[in-house]
Amino acid sequence: MEKMRRGTVKFTHPPEVLSHGCAVGKKEGQGPLGKLFDHIQDDEYFGQENWEKAESQFQSAAISICLGHAAINGSDLDLAVGGDLLNQCTATSSAVKKLGSPFLGVYGACSTMAESLITAAALIDGGYGERVLASAGSHFCSAEKQFRTPLEYGSQRPPSAQWTVTGAGAVLLGKTGGKAKITAATVGAIVDMGIKDANHMGGAMAPAFADTIANHLRGVGARPGDYDAIFSGDLGVIGMDLAQELLKRDEIDISAVHHDCGEMIFDRETQDVHAGGSGCGCAASVLCAHILPMLESGQWKRVLFCATGALLSPTTVLQGASIPCIAHAVEIAAL
Amino acid sequence: MEKMRRGTVKFTHPPEVLSHGCAVGKKEGQGPLGKLFDHIQDDEYFGQENWEKAESQFQSAAISICLGHAAINGSDLDLAVGGDLLNQCTATSSAVKKLGSPFLGVYGACSTMAESLITAAALIDGGYGERVLASAGSHFCSAEKQFRTPLEYGSQRPPSAQWTVTGAGAVLLGKTGGKAKITAATVGAIVDMGIKDANHMGGAMAPAFADTIANHLRGVGARPGDYDAIFSGDLGVIGMDLAQELLKRDEIDISAVHHDCGEMIFDRETQDVHAGGSGCGCAASVLCAHILPMLESGQWKRVLFCATGALLSPTTVLQGASIPCIAHAVEIAAL
Repeated sequence: MEKMRRGTVKFTHPPEVLSHGCAVGKKEGQGPLGKLFDHIQDDEYFGQENWEKAESQFQSAAISICLGHAAINGSDLDLAVGGDLLNQCTATSSAVKKLGSPFLGVYGACSTMAESLITAAALIDGGYGERVLASAGSHFCSAEKQFRTPLEYGSQRPPSAQWTVTGAGAVLLGKTGGKAKITAATVGAIVDMGIKDANHMGGAMAPAFADTIANHLRGVGARPGDYDAIFSGDLGVIGMDLAQELLKRDEIDISAVHHDCGEMIFDRETQDVHAGGSGCGCAASVLCAHILPMLESGQWKRVLFCATGALLSPTTVLQGASIPCIAHAVEIAAL
Repeated sequence: MEKMRRGTVKFTHPPEVLSHGCAVGKKEGQGPLGKLFDHIQDDEYFGQENWEKAESQFQSAAISICLGHAAINGSDLDLAVGGDLLNQCTATSSAVKKLGSPFLGVYGACSTMAESLITAAALIDGGYGERVLASAGSHFCSAEKQFRTPLEYGSQRPPSAQWTVTGAGAVLLGKTGGKAKITAATVGAIVDMGIKDANHMGGAMAPAFADTIANHLRGVGARPGDYDAIFSGDLGVIGMDLAQELLKRDEIDISAVHHDCGEMIFDRETQDVHAGGSGCGCAASVLCAHILPMLESGQWKRVLFCATGALLSPTTVLQGASIPCIAHAVEIAAL
């Protein structure tokens, strides 16, 4: 790695994407990207006895598909890096323990897929090993139960609320042999603008996204037009607008290339998701189903993937604390 | 980094310990290591309105002391890596947001200090930056409330239970200028032997510790006697015995050099902690108060610090799941 600017690095030997896999739920499968996912699971329990185990099963499925595409086993991995939204990240540890691989658990809320990728890429570039897995996932039912209200209450959701994606994504990085590579990354700093509404995550996260994008562009010396697409993780429609407006104040206009995984994964007209999708599994599954294939097929040359996370907990919300947010950017290029 | 064996690396340019700081509660201050801690806070609320904010304040205090010793500010940091036991790791994000530094949140339960150190060291060695902070903390009251029962119940604790340390530790790593250095590390794999008793963490974690120690010794080609001390994080007295027995089956005898931070931090005769201390803050504060100073003063030459984590959640315990455990080893040498 070469440090370009505080937080931003270019990889000396850009780690390559050897394979990827994703698994999503029925609602995601019915959305605009439905045909692109590797596996659509209609049973919200995924054959398990509770939603937490089901969430883990989605991540297991994504990992199995990913490793299957590369024709390797868990015993071939030098490391797995991953996380989720459940308390103590238990969906990931349950999924990873089957692999028998060295494991670093990360927590970045919905920014987790970008954090996992950056950690994995940095460790490969630094010489840690040759095959490192990055994964993340989430589940609508376990997230609602844990962060908001029991589903059985049938609570009304405000228009700014987002719908947690049931799904997961996994990416296998290696030294060589892929069709896309991780060329640079920016680790974000926490930005907290004082928003306390846990049903307005897009608004809370937009300033963190804008901060990381501005830092990344300065760090690598790029303009928005240098990218075929700049993806936010799950700002939703309200957060997207806010983020673009904040960046314009900094004289950075990303509107022509800005997409949001949360905005894309559901049809807001027909799927009743309000401001869009969210959750670790949102950015992770869209990365694997749409973004990486567009690079691998050569339709895109260079993309910035910037997943965003709201670092709140149900306890801090009830205690009236504001929501610290973070965003990490990963630059991915076609080979 | 140079990969020695799956999971084990030697650092090419061993990152150095530029400074460290720790802050602990009253009970820890009254224990056998009391005189060694940088700050002892008698108020369990640390001037805050709840235990969760107090937990964050302990980590803030440790970070402030650490940065103060190095005479730098948060704005001088290239990165902060850290975590805690609270749901969604909010104690760490609240503490780190004041620094304005790029941040990678990690979750490894009580292994977090070792995970933070390995991530920080690997990123410095790989060229990410020059000054990276690693931190972890925990709080007895917030941990009991979240993982076991409300303190107000006055529940009886079984003899195998451990006492979560109220405290935190922070270590600043850099390229040069310290008196101790991180020479090698082993990232552990999850080991789950089927234990389901959340009051028997030492027994659950011992196999993970034994696995990582055996892998590390093989990876770097060392014997237990090559170290002045091998520290487990918080196995407690039951877990210590189990771990030594498991390693003896592998013909590895660490009994002459094995210490456990959880066994050392409290006086089991007088402090009513049953099997010993635990929590992210246990290994983190003992590292900063005792282990690093012994290396910096030249009394020790080479130490293995292996913090252990039980990756359970209150939800998985209630659902009857077994406890996945992990241990990460960090080799630290005097300069």
